[in-house]
Amino acid sequence: MAGILYLIPAPLDENLAQIEHIPEATLQIARTLTHFVVEHAKTARAYLKKVETALPLQQLSLQTLNKHTQDNELAALLQPLLDGTNVGLLSEAGCPAVADPGAQLVALAHRHNIKVVPLVGPSSILLAVMGSGLNGQRFSFQGYLPANNDDRTKTLKQLEIYSRQNKETILFIETPYRNQAMLDSLLSSLNPATRLCIAVDLTCPEEQIRTLTVGEWKKQSAPAFHKRPALFLFLAN
Amino acid sequence: MAGILYLIPAPLDENLAQIEHIPEATLQIARTLTHFVVEHAKTARAYLKKVETALPLQQLSLQTLNKHTQDNELAALLQPLLDGTNVGLLSEAGCPAVADPGAQLVALAHRHNIKVVPLVGPSSILLAVMGSGLNGQRFSFQGYLPANNDDRTKTLKQLEIYSRQNKETILFIETPYRNQAMLDSLLSSLNPATRLCIAVDLTCPEEQIRTLTVGEWKKQSAPAFHKRPALFLFLAN
Repeated sequence: MAGILYLIPAPLDENLAQIEHIPEATLQIARTLTHFVVEHAKTARAYLKKVETALPLQQLSLQTLNKHTQDNELAALLQPLLDGTNVGLLSEAGCPAVADPGAQLVALAHRHNIKVVPLVGPSSILLAVMGSGLNGQRFSFQGYLPANNDDRTKTLKQLEIYSRQNKETILFIETPYRNQAMLDSLLSSLNPATRLCIAVDLTCPEEQIRTLTVGEWKKQSAPAFHKRPALFLFLAN
Repeated sequence: MAGILYLIPAPLDENLAQIEHIPEATLQIARTLTHFVVEHAKTARAYLKKVETALPLQQLSLQTLNKHTQDNELAALLQPLLDGTNVGLLSEAGCPAVADPGAQLVALAHRHNIKVVPLVGPSSILLAVMGSGLNGQRFSFQGYLPANNDDRTKTLKQLEIYSRQNKETILFIETPYRNQAMLDSLLSSLNPATRLCIAVDLTCPEEQIRTLTVGEWKKQSAPAFHKRPALFLFLAN
């Protein structure tokens, strides 16, 4: 009988220390596992230490799946499942298979009729939608926008039209050291009446979530978000 | 000093009994609160009983915010926050202010510079994206699609084109007794190569998550999803 692929969320803080944000039901399953597929072994070990797995840390099998993993390496990651072993998929922070390479393994598991069980835990994407007060009935996560200034401006203007036509909240992330550049692009590209939310350091003591119109943001100082994990959300009206 | 608006997720099962899916950090804050804004008082009370609030259930203030709430009634819901009392916003199941009317109160809180703190908990939307193996780098939640057959077919075909062009996973919900009708529409509207995930009863013992191509689904029997909460996700290629 094949194993089950469990998708195990991790805390959002950089030390993965906030185990109190992981539900007991998730921890209970994670503790029983002996095989994990992880994005980075070092941070995964720090998290699994907090989880207190039944098996000692050094006896766990940790395989890596990240953006450098080739398609032909995925079969080896699936093998323990085919052999009947349950496997836990971990992301660097937050929910695996969302905004990370883990979805490839989940897709392969489905093709082999392996049972996939996503477990409850923190997602900065979902927390940002909740906290923004923007439309939560329709929203889209766009990953990273183009880094090039002209392309980014063009994309933002297109997304703003789409948001207005569909009453859809648009959200995306940015490499933390580029947060100020992204805010500059947003303020120069979007309509002053468009509502813009910036969500920084979600679930952490320094958490900031602020929704203002673009016109209001222009009169405000930027949030303290340099090199901090941030999400940007907007809804055009 | 103004109060804080906490957004408190609830379990996804119909009895709101799965308190083990709510992280300790969320429970700790929920227990301290005396004022709640809820979608339905009866189910909220059942959940708050499980939460074990510090104040006895009958002494809690429960105000209702649902789809019948008028804009001019929102100010009264905000008042305790302006008066300095922390308030918990609860949804019927899952995360408040996502696919429910709670976002209106969050938006009003932002306009009054009230601090908004979203707490971690179950979201069927995010669990479905994780479990689908479809693209988690770009996805959009579309709420409910049109109920009328012709409109729905037209919308599905438009969304499929958008999904193909943008490599974006499309997800939506349906009124549970219409799940079979939705599946029929999907199978007759979408390209056979489009991958379709159906996620039913998430976090519950009866959970089913299956991703197949539309062509494969046509040869399969439908999942046991009549009158069960289900999400539909697809990604065109």
